[in-house]
Amino acid sequence: MPQTHLAVGVDFGGTSVKIGVAFRGNVVDQAPPIATADFDGPDALIETIIEVVNELRQKHPRTAAVGVGVPGFVDFEKGMVHNLTNVPGWEGIKLKRILGDRLDLPVAVDNDANCMAYAEWKRGAGRGLDNLIAITLGTGVGGGVVANGAMVRGARFGAGEVGQMSIDYQGVRGTYGNLGALEEYVGNQQIAEMAHQAYEAAGEPRSESNCTPAELSRLARQGDAVALEVWDRVATKLASALMSCCWLLNPHAIIIGGGVAKAGELLFGPLTSHLYAQLSPPFKDHLMILPARFGNEAGMIGAAALSLDSAGMTYRP
Amino acid sequence: MPQTHLAVGVDFGGTSVKIGVAFRGNVVDQAPPIATADFDGPDALIETIIEVVNELRQKHPRTAAVGVGVPGFVDFEKGMVHNLTNVPGWEGIKLKRILGDRLDLPVAVDNDANCMAYAEWKRGAGRGLDNLIAITLGTGVGGGVVANGAMVRGARFGAGEVGQMSIDYQGVRGTYGNLGALEEYVGNQQIAEMAHQAYEAAGEPRSESNCTPAELSRLARQGDAVALEVWDRVATKLASALMSCCWLLNPHAIIIGGGVAKAGELLFGPLTSHLYAQLSPPFKDHLMILPARFGNEAGMIGAAALSLDSAGMTYRP
Repeated sequence: MPQTHLAVGVDFGGTSVKIGVAFRGNVVDQAPPIATADFDGPDALIETIIEVVNELRQKHPRTAAVGVGVPGFVDFEKGMVHNLTNVPGWEGIKLKRILGDRLDLPVAVDNDANCMAYAEWKRGAGRGLDNLIAITLGTGVGGGVVANGAMVRGARFGAGEVGQMSIDYQGVRGTYGNLGALEEYVGNQQIAEMAHQAYEAAGEPRSESNCTPAELSRLARQGDAVALEVWDRVATKLASALMSCCWLLNPHAIIIGGGVAKAGELLFGPLTSHLYAQLSPPFKDHLMILPARFGNEAGMIGAAALSLDSAGMTYRP
Repeated sequence: MPQTHLAVGVDFGGTSVKIGVAFRGNVVDQAPPIATADFDGPDALIETIIEVVNELRQKHPRTAAVGVGVPGFVDFEKGMVHNLTNVPGWEGIKLKRILGDRLDLPVAVDNDANCMAYAEWKRGAGRGLDNLIAITLGTGVGGGVVANGAMVRGARFGAGEVGQMSIDYQGVRGTYGNLGALEEYVGNQQIAEMAHQAYEAAGEPRSESNCTPAELSRLARQGDAVALEVWDRVATKLASALMSCCWLLNPHAIIIGGGVAKAGELLFGPLTSHLYAQLSPPFKDHLMILPARFGNEAGMIGAAALSLDSAGMTYRP
């Protein structure tokens, strides 16, 4: 029997909360985003989330579960938010229990990058693959890991932090003292700085604000040599971390999403070439490097899918 | 009912094949090693292995399975050896089928580093842990990964190659073109070279052959500043790769074996300190860095354990 349940997906970002109703990998309805800055602390924001979820449920009575993705550290089993990176006051919030009690629906709470990875694995580019790594490239670098046909969460639900992996044991210090953290090389801001310096060195000064990934893509597509070189350097650094992931986990696929991935072939071309040049046949012959299927909706779709699957209402196509 | 089966473990090394009977994590009997150089190709060597296994079975009638660990690339499911790194002629050998037919026992064949990891996970330092990484430090660096309570093998059974992970995206080229491959920094030979140069720089020249890990341990224990510095540099490089493993997989434990690990606290001390300095609480608070329980017998014990477990004759303490 085909699955007919819908689920609400809540994508909790640093600045806004997006809430939508997902069905088979599509957001079929979405409420206006909630600005987190409008709320003093978790209590009032949670109240508003509950109101919005209830409104959506009234419109979509087959809503059977609620999933939440949050930008921080979560105890997935307990559904407890330990803390959020950029949202003050969220510490030790038992979100799964609170929402479950109030909504009387199964609730799942996970890290936002895990939700993205889950969306791609279960509904997106990685469907049917038992071993994959999904990353999202933006301000920072997030990720999730699937091995043996299951999400890898690790000892304390922290697994998947590809952005914190080192690409240089003597490199730039990351947020956690981690030398050479990938995120410090290929985040939006770092790409802009790298490009700014490259244009300066080339005698064609260009401000950092004119070196966004989108602008660098536009320039590279026009054949701009500096922009092409910048994308190759981004690809080189990203390839190093992903190469390490491949040697360690031998995945079927690496799925890449987030704003920076919109560069498309400008990034994927050199990335694939650098990556394949550093792997032996069993690691590269069957390796797929895939663009993510979902963009901004990945968090909602993943959280919704996770909530249904965790409640045993698994989608079967 | 306690498990009472024994299993034969075959540890196929670059120079010799060790064959022993294992029982609950102990090698209770062992045949004299077979020198691989004495054999022209796989056929004759396989015959000899079969003879030795049969001799051991006659002495230990409760032998219920045979496991083989080989130094190369294996299709674990099919039990086929694709190729061995340092043993010519071993290509596309269906070892599991050949041994199974001749011995009429369940046979498992895996990569030697996976067997070591399996031994530590099921019978050794990592018992009861669902997420761990086991590495072996010697001429090269091998490893195995356990996640969600299962060995991670990956798309083509290649997973666990910690020694091929990069610690420097602009670093030394590894065997597979992989820049910054850990193995190129902390293998036996590389440690000797590093020490040789460090002693030269310190104005206390010392030949490479007098810079073995054992010799460097002896010197460091006497308070030799150069030797201590060399161990710290080895630890720094190793910590970088293991830190990346931790961010990606959030393991309960990292288990470290092999000849280089015999340095003990000289290595484990600075390694732990460098590693913890580069991880956030969910990744380090519960992380154990453990010396491997097994030494030279790890391969036999792991292969034997794997063969019993794969045949459903799982050991239950």
